[in-house]
Amino acid sequence: MSENTNINKKWYQKSGTNGDTVISTRIRFARNIQGLPFPCRMSIDDKRKSIALVKKAILEGNSVLSNRFKFIDMETLSQEQAVSLVERHLVSPEFISDREGKGLLLLDDESISIMINEEDHIRLQVMKEGFALEEAFDICDKIDTMLDEQLTFSFDENLGYLTQCLTNLGTGMRASVMLHLPALQDRKAIGRISQNLSKLGLTMRGTYGEGTEPKGAMYQLSNQVTLGISETTAINNLKSIAVQLINQELELRKAIMNEPDVIDAIYRSKGILKSAYVMSNDESNKLLSNVRFGVSLGIIKDISLDLINSLIVELQPATLMINQNKNMTPQERDIVRAKILRDKLFECN
Amino acid sequence: MSENTNINKKWYQKSGTNGDTVISTRIRFARNIQGLPFPCRMSIDDKRKSIALVKKAILEGNSVLSNRFKFIDMETLSQEQAVSLVERHLVSPEFISDREGKGLLLLDDESISIMINEEDHIRLQVMKEGFALEEAFDICDKIDTMLDEQLTFSFDENLGYLTQCLTNLGTGMRASVMLHLPALQDRKAIGRISQNLSKLGLTMRGTYGEGTEPKGAMYQLSNQVTLGISETTAINNLKSIAVQLINQELELRKAIMNEPDVIDAIYRSKGILKSAYVMSNDESNKLLSNVRFGVSLGIIKDISLDLINSLIVELQPATLMINQNKNMTPQERDIVRAKILRDKLFECN
Repeated sequence: MSENTNINKKWYQKSGTNGDTVISTRIRFARNIQGLPFPCRMSIDDKRKSIALVKKAILEGNSVLSNRFKFIDMETLSQEQAVSLVERHLVSPEFISDREGKGLLLLDDESISIMINEEDHIRLQVMKEGFALEEAFDICDKIDTMLDEQLTFSFDENLGYLTQCLTNLGTGMRASVMLHLPALQDRKAIGRISQNLSKLGLTMRGTYGEGTEPKGAMYQLSNQVTLGISETTAINNLKSIAVQLINQELELRKAIMNEPDVIDAIYRSKGILKSAYVMSNDESNKLLSNVRFGVSLGIIKDISLDLINSLIVELQPATLMINQNKNMTPQERDIVRAKILRDKLFECN
Repeated sequence: MSENTNINKKWYQKSGTNGDTVISTRIRFARNIQGLPFPCRMSIDDKRKSIALVKKAILEGNSVLSNRFKFIDMETLSQEQAVSLVERHLVSPEFISDREGKGLLLLDDESISIMINEEDHIRLQVMKEGFALEEAFDICDKIDTMLDEQLTFSFDENLGYLTQCLTNLGTGMRASVMLHLPALQDRKAIGRISQNLSKLGLTMRGTYGEGTEPKGAMYQLSNQVTLGISETTAINNLKSIAVQLINQELELRKAIMNEPDVIDAIYRSKGILKSAYVMSNDESNKLLSNVRFGVSLGIIKDISLDLINSLIVELQPATLMINQNKNMTPQERDIVRAKILRDKLFECN
């Protein structure tokens, strides 16, 4: 793994295009290897075989990126290390529930991850800070080409890429943007918007993944349709709706930014983050979301979006323990989390 | 009114003996003038007569204090000025409900106030910062002697001082201490203590006066019995129970001072006071109480009890408007209150 300084910064420690409303962009391709059963029906030998094939295709691939990947045998990780991968959005929660015969290829800046033997043989994911659908798609496409050079994908002329779950059949692509929508959330506008989106083949959910409630006004907007639509069309649809949502959010922010309660919530959130002695992850997310909102309104000037983005990822329970290099009780974590926040925000007025 | 610097500081802007647990001490004497009916039965002419008598006895009295008193005709005050007197504990809420024929004599540092034509003709009150029962009693006694030199009090050899309400008959004295009991309140110990106190002829209530809930862990402990007991005995009883309560509070503070939730509440309270943009009076009291607790535990070192005591009095709605010299809506007050707090605590880390 190379130790270049630029590369050492993880993707989630940066903010990107439209960083005030778009935290990150994600493109995921689902692929399967011809001649092997789907993972749910694989023997352990089959699993080792698919791991070996994908690993070779990437690590010995014909790309400058090849030597920036490392392979992680999921069986060798501690539970905290595995959970931290989920917290950093590098693997799905399902991927770590049973880690036998599972492998992960990870780029040094964590912007590209390849889960081997998740629901499909290959789940290739590209994450980028900010609003960067085309850029993320291009990288994903490039890695996909690398894999395609050495592997034969299960593909049908009429259906497209074959996947275990029918909802991925066709392009096998899921594209999403993580939006920060504090104003729309504050004015209870999310429910109405979400209902209309399903008619457009899109869906919007609370933070990262299904079945979770939105923490800190983070919403994942993604495409639902993979069959009978090209990748480009799917991405263009998603992009145009995202732009509309971003504009609605920004207009509403302008309309409410002078309201005392809004200013108060932002100031207090910063004050509590700078002073608390015990801080849960949920509260931290909520308060950082308010501070983020304050930064975008120009009310808070001395905290960067980069710092907020980093903290949201790094203060999560398992990632916190990994970085501190020790196991902690929930209360110990809450005390350490509060101390990190006080230290990081100490310089800020 | 003299403009001596020492005197310019009001009693509530200072902290006194046992200032970490005792905010203030109050002694009140009820007196009536022979030959006049009780105020509830007085004609307006009678009222003017008792005002003139008391005013003369004090302002033309034979004491260095005489020229430090000023007379306030309650009829001339605005509603805000009248309410502010209640907030500063100089008069009772009942006293301002109908202000016709009522007068007030007030010492420049506001430590002595004499309500004329409240429930009794004379309600003489001495307030002192901290735990100062004997000192407050001595001052009250001195003023009482001044009044007695020129007036004839309604007095019965067997019953003592005659008052309109039977609960004041005898000494006519009510002595009380305002205690700050955050640890006992936090551990829900107040209910049990209050029940036992009534057997001892004492009572304990939430902040200043009856019928209010405790805000900011402030409790008023006072004597209930005025008949068949000397002033000295009443004060000694009150003092010995107050000392016990203070010791219980201090021991419990020591026992809980390292608990993360306690430290957290103190740090956050300071952080919110330093950062909020909108702040109600109730919240301000609650947070200042926590900060006061933190100061007494040595956790907060850069905020003085004097400042906290001043703020608790001066941030109240009417007093705030008087000091700002303008009428404000509740929301405007909450914004100004927050700004004063931010400004006053700006220097504190």
